[in-house]
Amino acid sequence: MRRSVIGGAKRTTTTTCLFLLNHAHHRSLLPPLHHRLDSSSSCDSPPPPPPLLPPLLPTCRTPVLKCEYAVRGEIVILAQRLQEELKAKPGSLPFDEILYCNIGNPQSLGQLPITFFREVLALCDHPAILDKAEAQGLFSADSIKRAWQILDQIPGRATGAYSHSQGIKGLRDTIAAGIEARDGFPANPNDLFLTDGASPAVHMMMQLLIGSEKDGLLCPIPQYPLYSASIALHGGSLVPYYLDEETGWGLEVSELKKQLKEARSKGITVKALVVINPGNPTGQVLAEENQRAIVEFCKQEGLVLLADEVYQENVYVPEKKFHSFKKVARSMGYGDNDLCLVSFQSVSKGYHGECGKRGGYMEVTGFSPEVREQIYKLASVNLCSNISGQILASLVMSPPKVGDESYESYSAEKDGILKSLARRAKTLEDAFKSLEGITCNKAEGAMYLFPRIKLPEKAIKAAEAAKTAPDLFYCRRLLNATGVVVVPGSGFGQVPGTWHFRCTILPQEDKIPAIVSRLTAFHKSFMDEYRN
Amino acid sequence: MRRSVIGGAKRTTTTTCLFLLNHAHHRSLLPPLHHRLDSSSSCDSPPPPPPLLPPLLPTCRTPVLKCEYAVRGEIVILAQRLQEELKAKPGSLPFDEILYCNIGNPQSLGQLPITFFREVLALCDHPAILDKAEAQGLFSADSIKRAWQILDQIPGRATGAYSHSQGIKGLRDTIAAGIEARDGFPANPNDLFLTDGASPAVHMMMQLLIGSEKDGLLCPIPQYPLYSASIALHGGSLVPYYLDEETGWGLEVSELKKQLKEARSKGITVKALVVINPGNPTGQVLAEENQRAIVEFCKQEGLVLLADEVYQENVYVPEKKFHSFKKVARSMGYGDNDLCLVSFQSVSKGYHGECGKRGGYMEVTGFSPEVREQIYKLASVNLCSNISGQILASLVMSPPKVGDESYESYSAEKDGILKSLARRAKTLEDAFKSLEGITCNKAEGAMYLFPRIKLPEKAIKAAEAAKTAPDLFYCRRLLNATGVVVVPGSGFGQVPGTWHFRCTILPQEDKIPAIVSRLTAFHKSFMDEYRN
Repeated sequence: MRRSVIGGAKRTTTTTCLFLLNHAHHRSLLPPLHHRLDSSSSCDSPPPPPPLLPPLLPTCRTPVLKCEYAVRGEIVILAQRLQEELKAKPGSLPFDEILYCNIGNPQSLGQLPITFFREVLALCDHPAILDKAEAQGLFSADSIKRAWQILDQIPGRATGAYSHSQGIKGLRDTIAAGIEARDGFPANPNDLFLTDGASPAVHMMMQLLIGSEKDGLLCPIPQYPLYSASIALHGGSLVPYYLDEETGWGLEVSELKKQLKEARSKGITVKALVVINPGNPTGQVLAEENQRAIVEFCKQEGLVLLADEVYQENVYVPEKKFHSFKKVARSMGYGDNDLCLVSFQSVSKGYHGECGKRGGYMEVTGFSPEVREQIYKLASVNLCSNISGQILASLVMSPPKVGDESYESYSAEKDGILKSLARRAKTLEDAFKSLEGITCNKAEGAMYLFPRIKLPEKAIKAAEAAKTAPDLFYCRRLLNATGVVVVPGSGFGQVPGTWHFRCTILPQEDKIPAIVSRLTAFHKSFMDEYRN
Repeated sequence: MRRSVIGGAKRTTTTTCLFLLNHAHHRSLLPPLHHRLDSSSSCDSPPPPPPLLPPLLPTCRTPVLKCEYAVRGEIVILAQRLQEELKAKPGSLPFDEILYCNIGNPQSLGQLPITFFREVLALCDHPAILDKAEAQGLFSADSIKRAWQILDQIPGRATGAYSHSQGIKGLRDTIAAGIEARDGFPANPNDLFLTDGASPAVHMMMQLLIGSEKDGLLCPIPQYPLYSASIALHGGSLVPYYLDEETGWGLEVSELKKQLKEARSKGITVKALVVINPGNPTGQVLAEENQRAIVEFCKQEGLVLLADEVYQENVYVPEKKFHSFKKVARSMGYGDNDLCLVSFQSVSKGYHGECGKRGGYMEVTGFSPEVREQIYKLASVNLCSNISGQILASLVMSPPKVGDESYESYSAEKDGILKSLARRAKTLEDAFKSLEGITCNKAEGAMYLFPRIKLPEKAIKAAEAAKTAPDLFYCRRLLNATGVVVVPGSGFGQVPGTWHFRCTILPQEDKIPAIVSRLTAFHKSFMDEYRN
């Protein structure tokens, strides 16, 4: 069994370093000393003794230095440089555009926003036009109606005011109703915290749960690096559990138990379990039975269940269906007194992909009032999330319904995007599978493929000689040759000795054939170059 | 000298507790144990041994528990409860509305947004209407032109895509040009980090600068509690320097030196100096000469200067003018190699008061490339700030100019708001000054008055009996009697034994007479009740 290769005494204690790519360059973080001494000679107060000059950054133990975030890391910075080069000297590179497949950012690759959502946002931004006759010609009747409804939910109709720290109450009511409709179980608007996307919500929970490096969170490997980054930033320990690639990135409770036991034996207080469903970067959709076992495990072990459910709308295979962990827990008869559960949702994903609007929420259930008070305080220190994002979160959880003027166009836009995503996932999956040494699981959901590459020994040696991880070496070569940006598996964690990369399924369909042929040509020539 | 009353050996070490109101109630943070034991009996896996149940929150040393944020604290929660009460039972309280003077949130109190800004935002939210004939009747010509310009600055015109982690480059160019026009010195768009309001920018700098409780930041007392809260959250030490109420909240370099020396003698590595100009909660505007001395001090001592300049548009007295610290430093001949300087700006303040849009930026100069890389990484972990906020930040730094169609209406709206704020500040200041036992400095700038109340001994005793700080006791009584919400001085820090509260100058002018008469009546009756 592959996972046992890396099972061992040191796993838990080494994980906070798993994502440390390099920090050798953090030695000298001050402006050159001579500048300070030179200019101080022209001043009237005496120069301080040089040893007192405080270093600007603390030593390497600082959480900031430890934190790494691969989806915006080295490869992306290289891509931005190449893009500048292309702009300055068109034709100077072997491709004429950079294709960002590194991040789930649909609209950056040409996906259009859902018209109804944008109509409502525009009207809420400038309510002065709502009453004007010309507005009828520019906006659908139901967008005008919805904008009025939303404005009436906002105290003083003030879309430019800070809201309640948890978000506007009326919008939370709408979202709670949407959750109820989705799950068939009640949702309480006071359990909702509206946030600028899901990331700040995750940070908030990490801040709450982590007191020291003795506090651990069980996280999947591979994982979305927001988790490793935020655990590192807040000074906790990532306790890894490994998804099983052989079974389509299966999540086995036996593995959770094993890792929990091992972490506890090392004195780590495991506070929570992170589950990403549908999976990122792995694209699997959990079966309901599996979710029940996970809920049971958290309940038994007193772990907070942090459920990243931002891809809940992104399921592409008929045999799988998204079930929220709250629905699963409630259907098992478990209520607020049985389980602490946080569900994260975002407007950035789904079929809408409104990443730039930074909207989202977390539904927080099962915590005692004292803990809730602390979460509220954390929310209040940043005052509130942006109101357009709050409005959009309410629209996403309450889209047009049958009979509304926009319903047909809305449905057509939504279905068009989701069906196209499913086709793109399949085409790219097939393309990867056809390449020498590459295996690739199905993208059941989310926005990614996470193919595994068996790199030739010679390529691994070349990477070592270049002081680079072999998967990063491959991705960098791919970018330089094709302009396609993918993220090396090492940014997400992987079983040591295996190599992967994450590629989004988001390029528009008319670009997919070119991507496939560029990828194929590159891979063939790479393998030819390094074949043993 | 009053400040010396609290000068003493324990000042620095006690400051992280200065804002700890109460944490006695954080003892039991788990759901009741019996729930866990009861329900586990119905499950097939064996219940875990109770001692293993991890406490959900760490002990009191956790930074989260330490953090307090008065402007959204106890008084505001009480106000929200009263508001619910008013809604449920109109007429049940001695007032018919809650007047939130606790927070600088102009549009919540009826201030209208600047039309041009909202036109451009609406058009960028729904660019599909830009080409339509009806749009001409609804939007000004220059808002349409500006929307096109902005869309052309956004890669793929995708307002729904994540942007560069620092913000859209074209918008940063516009902002940099605005800073240059303001200061007369160059600004580099690559030094700008666009953020969801100023608060996340401040958190980012705290994360960067604080490695342990041995890392300190010099902060004014009184201060905006974002600073104490974020220093506590990130586990550092607040090193207080006291503003001198006698000289209109003067900031004296001798005090900075004294506090720096004292902190260093205790082994604190002081990393930075926080200056809020115009002042919050104190409303003073620093003289340029004073700013030069502060710059010199930071340069000499190798301190990062964190300049909170979010009230740069809010200056109400002709004898004072806002100067950015960057302009002051550059005019002294100090460049990137002399001083690490961060300037925070927000769309929430100024004449526009667009709090709900969560836009802002920090301009980061003088840091080495290695440190800049860390700041970039922190920005990238949250992907990007919201695009509407980014657009608004560019508009605020580049409003309509003479000759533009909107210029006249824009100017009229802007001047109307700023002149009205100046009148409101003066009326409230005069009202406070006329009250028994209250002194109040001039609001030269920002959005607040910070009057000092000399409370009768009997009131202080009553507060003690109620286990409440005397200023909180007063503010709670004021709220219960009048519906006016102000924040007790203890939330900002004050010289021990003195009592203040912060009151915004933001209620609309037609409400000011009623507020003044309610305040006056309440204060008179309070003093009558407790006069010795």
